[in-house]
Amino acid sequence: MWFAQTNFESMQTWDQLFLDLNLATMCAGSTPYGAISSGALAISDGRIAWVGPELELPSYDAKTIDRLDGRWLTPALIDCHTHLVFGGDRAMEFEQRLNGATYEEIARAGGGIRSTVQATRNTSQSALLESAIYRVTTLMREGVATVEVKSGYGLDSNTEIKMLEVAQELEQSCSASIVKTFLGAHAVPEEYQHDADSYMDFVADDVLPEAHERQLVDAVDAYCETIAFSTPQVATLFDKAKTLGIDVKLHADQLSDCGGAELAASFNALSADHLEYTTAVGVEALASSGSVAVLLPGPFLMLGETQLPPIDELRANSVPIALATDCNPGSSPLCSIRLAMNLATSLFKLTPEECLAGVTRNAAQALGLLSDRGTLEKGKRADFVEWKVSHPRELTYWAGINQLHRLFIDGEVVD
Amino acid sequence: MWFAQTNFESMQTWDQLFLDLNLATMCAGSTPYGAISSGALAISDGRIAWVGPELELPSYDAKTIDRLDGRWLTPALIDCHTHLVFGGDRAMEFEQRLNGATYEEIARAGGGIRSTVQATRNTSQSALLESAIYRVTTLMREGVATVEVKSGYGLDSNTEIKMLEVAQELEQSCSASIVKTFLGAHAVPEEYQHDADSYMDFVADDVLPEAHERQLVDAVDAYCETIAFSTPQVATLFDKAKTLGIDVKLHADQLSDCGGAELAASFNALSADHLEYTTAVGVEALASSGSVAVLLPGPFLMLGETQLPPIDELRANSVPIALATDCNPGSSPLCSIRLAMNLATSLFKLTPEECLAGVTRNAAQALGLLSDRGTLEKGKRADFVEWKVSHPRELTYWAGINQLHRLFIDGEVVD
Repeated sequence: MWFAQTNFESMQTWDQLFLDLNLATMCAGSTPYGAISSGALAISDGRIAWVGPELELPSYDAKTIDRLDGRWLTPALIDCHTHLVFGGDRAMEFEQRLNGATYEEIARAGGGIRSTVQATRNTSQSALLESAIYRVTTLMREGVATVEVKSGYGLDSNTEIKMLEVAQELEQSCSASIVKTFLGAHAVPEEYQHDADSYMDFVADDVLPEAHERQLVDAVDAYCETIAFSTPQVATLFDKAKTLGIDVKLHADQLSDCGGAELAASFNALSADHLEYTTAVGVEALASSGSVAVLLPGPFLMLGETQLPPIDELRANSVPIALATDCNPGSSPLCSIRLAMNLATSLFKLTPEECLAGVTRNAAQALGLLSDRGTLEKGKRADFVEWKVSHPRELTYWAGINQLHRLFIDGEVVD
Repeated sequence: MWFAQTNFESMQTWDQLFLDLNLATMCAGSTPYGAISSGALAISDGRIAWVGPELELPSYDAKTIDRLDGRWLTPALIDCHTHLVFGGDRAMEFEQRLNGATYEEIARAGGGIRSTVQATRNTSQSALLESAIYRVTTLMREGVATVEVKSGYGLDSNTEIKMLEVAQELEQSCSASIVKTFLGAHAVPEEYQHDADSYMDFVADDVLPEAHERQLVDAVDAYCETIAFSTPQVATLFDKAKTLGIDVKLHADQLSDCGGAELAASFNALSADHLEYTTAVGVEALASSGSVAVLLPGPFLMLGETQLPPIDELRANSVPIALATDCNPGSSPLCSIRLAMNLATSLFKLTPEECLAGVTRNAAQALGLLSDRGTLEKGKRADFVEWKVSHPRELTYWAGINQLHRLFIDGEVVD
């Protein structure tokens, strides 16, 4: 009896066990992709209960066993920078620009971010939700299980909160996790033209506290740029965020070196995003603060940018690099994380492994969620993708081919 | 009785009538997109029987009537330049290159086109077919109904013919039309190293006639480049093609100005493709010969090319511009015509209308099929797409979103 009891106690009991598979665990280390060939993965209660080589499986009792014919598992993908809640689109402006209209002409005709602000203010919450669900489900079909969504097309109290409520409803409508970022400091609205200081005070003192009170804010973001907010203005907002105990992140140095990376680092930002014009000093600051560098090939391509982010410096300083779609109607009408990965090889010369890490492990870190997801490790959420590939490098190599076989979120297959 | 007879004769009888829709007919002319709002389209026997404003409909009798809730119809899309029949892939080489390996190191390790030749020779016809079906159906999900497929990874008689047979079987397996292009002169095979002249003689005198005899050749293509074949060598092949009554096209001036466009024009080529290094003289030659310029943003992006095709000169000389994926395992692992359209805006500054014309009207012309398809006009094949967009410019604006509602080929919905 004692022996049986001992056996019973040492036996692992699992909800589901997957065998005959290969794993790209994406755990950092010396093995490319954190790969385990001929692996096994077990889940219980929506969490990874065991992961490793099949030969090292302990004795187990699994309710179901699933053989995957040698397919590859990776962590589910994470899109850590999007603006996918918005009204209207900017397709007409896109066409006008390609037909030779200048930015000034488009602005005079009511184009640019202000047209999206107008459309977002004028669009009902249910219509915003419907279009956002379409975009999130589009991302999910590529294996995305966690999506960051920013506000920032309201620039008034009601609409900023409406956008964050849409983000919250998104999570109830889709099975993906939605991370809500407050970006009231995205642009200076028409109502505050030439008075960015006052607008920033309004954002910091009125809108953010209200959104926070309603539990709609997972992080605070701002656009630090000559055409948007200065570093002192952003510091005002970030001071408030810190007072409220909210993590920050920053649109930094996209169009010019504004000292954005240094500012982000000084607030221990989760991430600094864009970074085309970040200097070596900025990179060192990010390394010291443990912030993630989020690179965004979508707007880089669409804006015809030629200044590359300081990729070698980021590597040399071991700053984790994440990738995201930046899905938005102006500078990145891109709703494909797989395409962001592929573009990052051509435009930024990232390796396929860096690209996959950029949408798994490092994207999770950029959202402050690395202890919960982003790698295939015991105890983490059972968010993973089963791919019909012979090697995970193929996920970056192909553009336009989706080798997804099944996406699991919280241990459940997504239809 | 006479009156009834007369009425009967003037009444149009159709298999199917579509109402409550907008049309981007893509007919050339002064109306952007050849657009007709509040249009109607009728089909009979797989052909377009009537197209125009709904208000101008004649009296009709239609077996079925379908109301489209204001959705847009465009001609079905055409991918007029692909190499999508191949064995193996080059993902590992792609990764090695991004990890810093030089082309020479990769070639020494058996990489480059020769590895695809080796893999294609060693892959069974049924396995080649299976992977090609996957790629064609991927294209079809984006609205593609006609796909050009080249040989050129055999470089021996058996494998070139095997590839063309796969292309022929593709058409039986998928409902898309497949246009078969003989590209025996894609590269100099190892067996003929340092003797490109002899290889070209072999291609022109042995392989092409045999493939033609088997009715496997819709057109003849060649790769004219310093690393491949010279203009005199290509001329040898094209002379033979003309003798056999086969149209030609050319990979021209991709990496250097080889006089490829001029050569293509001198043979009244259907198209000259790539064209990054084509001069003004070459463009004028294409204009005189009525050849289409096929631009390929996929390899342009992946190879990091910075020399733009002479787009303004092509426009100024009214040379029709087509776009294609160039789907191939080396320089363009791109299996998305929609992405080729989107990339052509960022990389080549083509307008959304030029992009859509590039994968409909002008792509049809590049395949010698303009009288049969490529626009929505009476008498043409009923190959069209029903899109959930509010304007056709959105088809180029979005990357990664597929607004396809239904694809019709030959008047039938493709599931």
